[in-house]
Amino acid sequence: MSKILVQKFGGTSVGDPERIKRVANRIKSYYEKGYQLVVVVSAMGHTTDELVDLAGKISQNPPKREMDMLLSTGEQVSIALLAMALHEVQVPAKSFTGAQVNILTDSNHSNARIEAIDTKRLTAELDNKQVCIVAGFQGIDENQNITTLGRGGSDTTAVALAAALKAKECEIYTDVDGVYTTDPNKVEKARKLNQISYDEMLELASLGAGVLHSRSVEFAKKYGVVIHVKSSFNYNEGTKVVSENEIMEKITVTGVTLKSDDARMTVADIPDKPGIAAEIFLALAEKKINIDVIVQSTGRDKTNTIAFTLPVAAIPEAKSTLEALTKKWGAGSVSTDDSIAIVSAVGVGMKSHTGVAASMFKALADNNINIEMISTSEIKISCVIAKDRGKDALRLVHSVFGLDKPA
Amino acid sequence: MSKILVQKFGGTSVGDPERIKRVANRIKSYYEKGYQLVVVVSAMGHTTDELVDLAGKISQNPPKREMDMLLSTGEQVSIALLAMALHEVQVPAKSFTGAQVNILTDSNHSNARIEAIDTKRLTAELDNKQVCIVAGFQGIDENQNITTLGRGGSDTTAVALAAALKAKECEIYTDVDGVYTTDPNKVEKARKLNQISYDEMLELASLGAGVLHSRSVEFAKKYGVVIHVKSSFNYNEGTKVVSENEIMEKITVTGVTLKSDDARMTVADIPDKPGIAAEIFLALAEKKINIDVIVQSTGRDKTNTIAFTLPVAAIPEAKSTLEALTKKWGAGSVSTDDSIAIVSAVGVGMKSHTGVAASMFKALADNNINIEMISTSEIKISCVIAKDRGKDALRLVHSVFGLDKPA
Repeated sequence: MSKILVQKFGGTSVGDPERIKRVANRIKSYYEKGYQLVVVVSAMGHTTDELVDLAGKISQNPPKREMDMLLSTGEQVSIALLAMALHEVQVPAKSFTGAQVNILTDSNHSNARIEAIDTKRLTAELDNKQVCIVAGFQGIDENQNITTLGRGGSDTTAVALAAALKAKECEIYTDVDGVYTTDPNKVEKARKLNQISYDEMLELASLGAGVLHSRSVEFAKKYGVVIHVKSSFNYNEGTKVVSENEIMEKITVTGVTLKSDDARMTVADIPDKPGIAAEIFLALAEKKINIDVIVQSTGRDKTNTIAFTLPVAAIPEAKSTLEALTKKWGAGSVSTDDSIAIVSAVGVGMKSHTGVAASMFKALADNNINIEMISTSEIKISCVIAKDRGKDALRLVHSVFGLDKPA
Repeated sequence: MSKILVQKFGGTSVGDPERIKRVANRIKSYYEKGYQLVVVVSAMGHTTDELVDLAGKISQNPPKREMDMLLSTGEQVSIALLAMALHEVQVPAKSFTGAQVNILTDSNHSNARIEAIDTKRLTAELDNKQVCIVAGFQGIDENQNITTLGRGGSDTTAVALAAALKAKECEIYTDVDGVYTTDPNKVEKARKLNQISYDEMLELASLGAGVLHSRSVEFAKKYGVVIHVKSSFNYNEGTKVVSENEIMEKITVTGVTLKSDDARMTVADIPDKPGIAAEIFLALAEKKINIDVIVQSTGRDKTNTIAFTLPVAAIPEAKSTLEALTKKWGAGSVSTDDSIAIVSAVGVGMKSHTGVAASMFKALADNNINIEMISTSEIKISCVIAKDRGKDALRLVHSVFGLDKPA
């Protein structure tokens, strides 16, 4: 079994000097247990936002290469300070930028993808009893230009290093104890999960409920890296994100989520002919608008109605995009309803259990909650309902799948 | 003639977004004249001090490697912002860290020396019409560790790049118009010099009067780089620092300085035997205390008195160091006088003109200014006088060598 452990601490965990010292003490306790440690850190607290503001005072549209040069300093400050804090508690440590440990990416500045990691330097330093502190979120391309990995980039750095070093696991420290059956702020009886599969985690992440960014989970799935989500405030076991095969008992539903910041947009009375739906969703994709639930129904007189959900913030752009289309067709109208919410149930057990959707629909119906739209995937069921019944629905669905009870 | 011009802007010149934009406009005017530009910048305003404070909250004695990792972010922020500002005014520009342009140094963290520069990347980018913005003050050692060059490091970076690229000259922008015959704040009639030799500049720098750090001047002298000290607030010609051979008319005295933050320390009644002086100054050198003027006089009864000047701030450490020696010898006493000032005249013309020292001594004597100690080098004469006559002495000496009059 590998003795290498990768630990990742986010911006909140290293938000000020006192917190950095606390992180150093945690690392020390693992170092003393004999682990070889690679620690990935993000920029302190609001550093990245401050740097973005600073750039905004110079240019409204700065070159992405230069934004990466600028933003990558945030992590460089954190790694230096954490290495200093480790020296203060007598733990030998060295900090490394993405360039120094050869985190090679493509040249897609601000949203680069990791292509390779050369672990020679890290392996040598680990063998030399050093704790290696690596800057998250950043890499270099083949011409030594500094790149950044986009949102959730530090998680991806940590998972990629764990994969490259064949680490025991990748611990991601956050401000929560792990992954919960649902949001504990909304449902008191929410319960921490010991395990969750990559696919379930991906569905939760896409629903905005996960503590991990999709890209790091996809990376972990591809390379079989065990992610362990833990709290940086205590030493409790967290939630392990593992491959489906490793989950012994496949419970039907693992998590339930509520999304309240989406709206429904309806394009009514449009021509019922092939290619219309594609035209609509290609136009929206070009504007990078995220669509979730889609429902199409045929109206009278050979006309169609297509409804879908989208983030409230995207309404103005989506509306003008679609009105340009209806104008072109000479038919159709666009309307918006932001009084909706989406309640979803996620679980790999759905694959082998029947009647999951039926149970969910019945629970809602029994409580007079009208289902306005439905969308399903192999491991997810989503229902669009009235926004003012959102929390009721969440609690009901959480309860109907037995998530209120101890595992 | 090379079309490559190196320009260096200090922390004050890039202190805020508005100033960065102003620097970008200056660079643009040179770019449009057809120069190939390499621009070296320091960290913005007080950034370095702020980073030092931040480190101080973590450790009183941080590892130097990690301090270099931390401090080098300051310049990285400046170069990114300046490159953005250039894009805003339609000048193609790219920023580079010390590592990216292979500024190879020794591994002496916090005070590294440049060993080599690989100009391949820079030459390619210049040929591609890019303005190259390079982070000052930083390099990498042979193991890719980030190093910093110590005080005045950005000047040294600029001069080293100018040498490596065989640039036309190295422009160093400051908040003054150039090098003056003396401090214009103290002597109204101080005059800007058009030229000054490397050696004169080095003497002035060691007297705390130069706008350039000694190391960059030594570097320029070694590689024959012409340094052009200019103001970042106007487009006036500044002062060129050149080799002695290039200075046509060797005026006797080029500059006059006054140092008021030194004190005199006297070690009296010490044994008159070989090795005593060496013992004293080796002990002080070990404590890295800077000594300037030294005078030794033989007392009665085979005893000696040694007096020297040192920075006021170094008094406590020097006193305890020397009292340990007098205790060991069983003889001698240590006393301090901080009511002194040092007035100096510097000029390569002294080499060929006789009577320079005599003129200086006479001017002081005629005005009842008592000379307490004297020290001379080939191109410098220093006199220790009473602090309350310091400004009078400076004005007198400035005038007696004709520096009040137009060149």
